[in-house]
Order: sequence, then C-alpha cells, then structure tokens
Amino acid sequence: MITLASDFGSPYPAAMKGVLLRGTDARLVDVAHDLPRQDVRAAAFWLREVLPWFPPAVHLVVVDPGVGTDRAALVVRAGEHALVGPDNGVLVPVARNLAEASGAAGGAFEVFDVAVDDPASHTFHGRDVFAPAAVAVHEAGVDAVEELDGVTPVDTFVDLRFPEPELGEERADGEVLVVDGFGNAITNLPGSILDGRYGGTVAVDGAPTMGRRTYAGVDPGVRLVTVGSHGNVELAVNRGRGDSAVGVEAGEAVRLSW
Amino acid sequence: MITLASDFGSPYPAAMKGVLLRGTDARLVDVAHDLPRQDVRAAAFWLREVLPWFPPAVHLVVVDPGVGTDRAALVVRAGEHALVGPDNGVLVPVARNLAEASGAAGGAFEVFDVAVDDPASHTFHGRDVFAPAAVAVHEAGVDAVEELDGVTPVDTFVDLRFPEPELGEERADGEVLVVDGFGNAITNLPGSILDGRYGGTVAVDGAPTMGRRTYAGVDPGVRLVTVGSHGNVELAVNRGRGDSAVGVEAGEAVRLSW
Amino acid sequence: MITLASDFGSPYPAAMKGVLLRGTDARLVDVAHDLPRQDVRAAAFWLREVLPWFPPAVHLVVVDPGVGTDRAALVVRAGEHALVGPDNGVLVPVARNLAEASGAAGGAFEVFDVAVDDPASHTFHGRDVFAPAAVAVHEAGVDAVEELDGVTPVDTFVDLRFPEPELGEERADGEVLVVDGFGNAITNLPGSILDGRYGGTVAVDGAPTMGRRTYAGVDPGVRLVTVGSHGNVELAVNRGRGDSAVGVEAGEAVRLSW
Repeated sequence: MITLASDFGSPYPAAMKGVLLRGTDARLVDVAHDLPRQDVRAAAFWLREVLPWFPPAVHLVVVDPGVGTDRAALVVRAGEHALVGPDNGVLVPVARNLAEASGAAGGAFEVFDVAVDDPASHTFHGRDVFAPAAVAVHEAGVDAVEELDGVTPVDTFVDLRFPEPELGEERADGEVLVVDGFGNAITNLPGSILDGRYGGTVAVDGAPTMGRRTYAGVDPGVRLVTVGSHGNVELAVNRGRGDSAVGVEAGEAVRLSW
Repeated sequence: MITLASDFGSPYPAAMKGVLLRGTDARLVDVAHDLPRQDVRAAAFWLREVLPWFPPAVHLVVVDPGVGTDRAALVVRAGEHALVGPDNGVLVPVARNLAEASGAAGGAFEVFDVAVDDPASHTFHGRDVFAPAAVAVHEAGVDAVEELDGVTPVDTFVDLRFPEPELGEERADGEVLVVDGFGNAITNLPGSILDGRYGGTVAVDGAPTMGRRTYAGVDPGVRLVTVGSHGNVELAVNRGRGDSAVGVEAGEAVRLSW
Repeated sequence: MITLASDFGSPYPAAMKGVLLRGTDARLVDVAHDLPRQDVRAAAFWLREVLPWFPPAVHLVVVDPGVGTDRAALVVRAGEHALVGPDNGVLVPVARNLAEASGAAGGAFEVFDVAVDDPASHTFHGRDVFAPAAVAVHEAGVDAVEELDGVTPVDTFVDLRFPEPELGEERADGEVLVVDGFGNAITNLPGSILDGRYGGTVAVDGAPTMGRRTYAGVDPGVRLVTVGSHGNVELAVNRGRGDSAVGVEAGEAVRLSW
C-alpha cells in the first residue's frame, strides 16, 4: 500500500499516480492533496494525526517549498512504515509517533538519503524523484531500504518539533498549531487540562468560554473549548468557526486560565 | 466494497480510511467528502442521488452535527446494501430508494442500533465508531448484520422526508432543496411538469424563463429551467449560476407558473 | 485500469463511479474532478500533461459544456490507451501525445463515434453515455474498440491545437494557457528560451524579472520566470501567485524580451 499526501491541489497529483502505477500494483490511497500549502509545520501536524491510523504502508509526502534547491530527499523507516519526502521536517513528527507505536526505544526511526540525479524537472520532485523512490521502497520492502541504489543512511536531517506549552496552576500558555476546515483552532495544549472543567467555563485570552465535551454541548453559534480527535485543546464554535470567533490564526499564542 | 461520504473536507477522511484498511481488504471508494457541511437534508438528497448507482456495498456516511451527543449510531440494511452512519435522518431517503429498487414492499428497509461504548473521542465518531462498524458489517456480510455484537434491531429512528410540492393546473409551488457546485438550484418539483413546455417559457417566481432540455439550449449567461440528472426541475444559467440569477438559496420557496 | 477526469466538482463523479463499478472490476483512478470548469482548452492542457504518465488505461474524460446537444460522443485510441469523452477537442492534444509516445507516424490516433440513443438524461452524459462506453471499451480491450456495438470509425472530429508562440531573436510572444492552483501562469512559450538566461533577468511585458530554475531561487514574494514541470515557461512568485503579480489570466498575451 502506498499513501499519497501533498499540498498540490489538482491536477498535479495525477502525474504522481501515473508514475506510481507504472511501477507497482500496490494499492494507492489518497490521504489529502490540500494540506496547508507550503506550510511544513501544519502539514507535519496533520500527517502525525492521520498516518498512524493506517496499516503498514509506504507514505509518499510532498509538501516541499524548497523543491529544486539542494535540500535532500529522504526515506524514513519507522516501525513497519516508510515515509518518502523532502528533508524539511515534514516527515519527522509522524515518524516519531510511528516509531513509538512500534515500541522502538525513544521513538527511534531511521533516516536515509536518496540520491537525486539530474531530475526531469527542477519544479516537480513529487513526480520525478519522490514517486519513483516510493515505488522502489514499496517493491523492495520496508526492511530492504538500505539495499536500494542511491540510498544512504544519514545521521543529520531537518528536525521539527511542535512548540511545548507552558502549563501552570492557574493558566496554560500555548499556541494555535493549525486551523482545520471547520474553523476549529487546534492548539498545542493537552486536552487533559480541561479535566474537571467540563460544564464550567475557562478563560480563553481572558474571555469566559464554556468547556464542553462535544460541539453540540453549546447552542449553535456559541463558543466553546473542547478536546479534538487529536487529543489537544480546540477553540471552536458549534456549527461555526472558532478561529474567527476567538480571532486567532495558526502560529498565534493563546492563554487559557481558570 | 465500502464507500465513504462525509462533510469532513480534508484531511480527516484519511483517518477513517486508515481504520478501514486496518480491518478489511475491501475496495474503498470515495463518494464525496464535501457534502453540504452539517446540512443533513442536503446531504441526504445527494446520497439518494448517487448511491443507488453503485453495486451492492457498505456505505459509510458521516454528516453528523450531533457527534458526541446521545444520538444513536445506525446500520441500515436496504436490499443488498448497508448504510452506516448517525441517526439524524441522513441515511433514510437513500435507504428508501435502495429498498424500493430491490423490490421490497413499500420501500421497506431495516434499521439497527450500534452500541457506542466509551469512544476514543467525543468528536470523531467517523473514525472511532462508524468506520469500525462499517468494517464489521462488511466482514460479516450484509445478511449477517443482526449477528454482530452490539447490534440491535430498532423500530424508531429519525425519519427524513423531502417536502412535497403543491402541483396545480396553472402553477407548481416547491422549494429549492440544494444548490450544486455549478450553481444549479435543484428543486423538489418533478421534471414532468415541464413536459410540453420545452421550447416555450414558464414563469419562475413571476419572471419568464425559457424551458429547455439542455443548458446549451440557451445562450451563455441566459437563464433556463430544465430537468437535472436527478429528474427534478433545476433553475440554471448556461455557463453561469442559476442560484444567483434567480436569487434563491437552499430551503427557499419557488413557484413555477404558466 | 480506468481513470476519471471531469469538471464536475462533487458529488456527481460518484454516480459515474457507481456505473463503472457495476460493469467492471477495473481499478479506478481519479485524475481530477476540478478541471477548469467548462474550459475545454485548459482541460485539454492538463490532460495532455498528466495522462501520458499513466500506464495503458481507459481514460474517461467529461468536460462537456455542450452536453445534451448533438455533439458526438467519442472513443479515441492512441497507442495502448483509449480516451472516452465528448467531441469538443478536449481529447485531442493528449491523444496526439500518447500516439507520438507510442511511435505512431505523425502522432496518428484513431477516432470512433459512439452512438447515443435516447439517454436516461439530457444533462449527465458522464453517467449515462460516457461511463457505460468506458466500461465497454475496458471490457472488450483497447484493441477491440471497432467491434463494439454502436461504435463507428470517423474521419472528422473537433480538433484542438494550442496557439503557437512567435519566437524572435530578442523576444518571444506567447499566451497564458492556464493558471494552476498555485497561481503559476503557464504559457505556450517553450522552456528552451530561458536557456542561458538563468541567473539573469528577462523582461515580462516590459518588467524586468529574474530567470530562475526553482521557485526558491528568489526570495519569498518575488517574481520569477521559470520552466514548469510541463516544460513551458511559467510566470511565478516564490510562495505567491504569479498570475496576480503579473496581472494576467488564461488566454491573455504575454511577451518576453531580453
């Protein structure tokens, strides 16, 4: 199985599918092709949320604002999964999660460099570099990555870690990591800080806001704080947009206090 | 075969796909993930239009504004098809059509409640409740739904029927059910009221409008009434948007007279 | 393998998938369903770019502003590929490319008319005419198109050729063919005119613009001319939109000079 994720929109992913289908009979599964465009951190967040639900697979990931520069092309092995994509950090958070889930000590994963020689284009490595690499990894098997031509283990790569929140007795300082398509502003605050506060209110940047387990726990149009499916605190509005109600965007600080 | 339909946009459907693929080798087919958001009636309309074209399948449907409340999770058996989704009416019109197509008396279908115990999240039942239920139904077979753990036949469920138009000698009063992506305003008026009126005009809310069998039957930018692929009257503009030309939205009344 | 491409958006393609799946076990691959709406030339451009990457397949293409008129329905055989869609030119550029790639003299391809008898609808030939035709071609095999009922070889069809640029010693006059989702304005100018000019500047409609091999070769927000993955000159902005920066739309003239 090969999954595909990109920020390409349409129709560029079809060329990648064609390349994959010329090289393999693997099942192809679209993850998303509208990942936040050229936003490596937000894309890394989403991949960490969704890819661990898959059975072992080769995951082709192309969110690559540095395409055509000398940034490396990587294969990452994490448990029984392989990730193929650019060396810009987008593969790292999900690799750490997959490796942890596999029982690897400290969430260890292995990183390999893929030689890029004179590609057919300087602007579409998804088609010309990463898709062929995904085919090669799939056909050889995740256990045999190091035996592939042009593939070399490396120790250094662009790391990416989400910012850590500051959790205190009376408040928690965090950041909005991404806003989803519903307008839910997803923070880096752990959902556990809402334990014991459901049914009451907490202050979001000073404004009293109801804590609820479900969006429908407040009337339509009313703000709430809840825990999203990812386990983090979300700023939301029942049947509305939390981001505009609270006035926050991805990357902005947010304080919860009580 | 398992089909997937939701109003999730992206990338949440990928987590559902991962859960499905961990549990089954079934073919997965995306129906749509941009069904009208949290609009149960409009989603029910589209599902009734597109799912009956499929061969027998398990259809996973998640348009679920009440997620996390005590609304039930359902499996509906209709002919050789099964539908899995929330008890808010979204499954009902298509179930009725599928059952009728199968020859069941009166379009009868069977409804089963799926026990929901302590889900992994309160906000993403598509991943945590409905996808596992779809896997269970697929693997057991549509004929064996009642043998599944936690599945109970029920007599009561949220029904959903589209409003009936009022058809008279000189006019027809209906309602816009949905607006499609082209801007065609799809009504609940049966296409048969245009029989004998193609080539002439009818009044739409009083404004003379050409009746045509095809969009290209009028010049670009010109309004028409036609019959869409669903068999209902559409208010359209050749290469333009019917909804803005007529000034209607889903849920609004419309009168045709002649 | 059957690929699907359309300008339908959602959820209409699902009805086509249902029809296909009732008739064949073929693998289905979505190419795109948001091809430029009712823009036959732009859709033809994208299909020419992406379909040749696929292994031999039946390609179902529905960009069909003339649906329901008497425009013909076609099957085109080009090398080991077949294309199924309306006779409006949308199939022609990719057919020429596929035939050339197969070694056919002069890029020759074969065109067949598909009889359309009393369709189920006048507005959705994708579902009622083209999808059944794609099933028939797939099941019979691309070599056996002429043996299908209702299929007749034809000599005349709507041709479509992209405009030729005028290339001089000191300038090149071309046209924007399409704008992609990133805002890159893709011209009909061959990428070779930038050879020897990377690192310097060329004038785009008189405005000095840096020539670069990669988007990241200029600072974010800065304009550049580059060669896209299709081999043509693109007007782009690193992490921005080239179309709005240059002030051009599809169909407009553009002059590069040096």
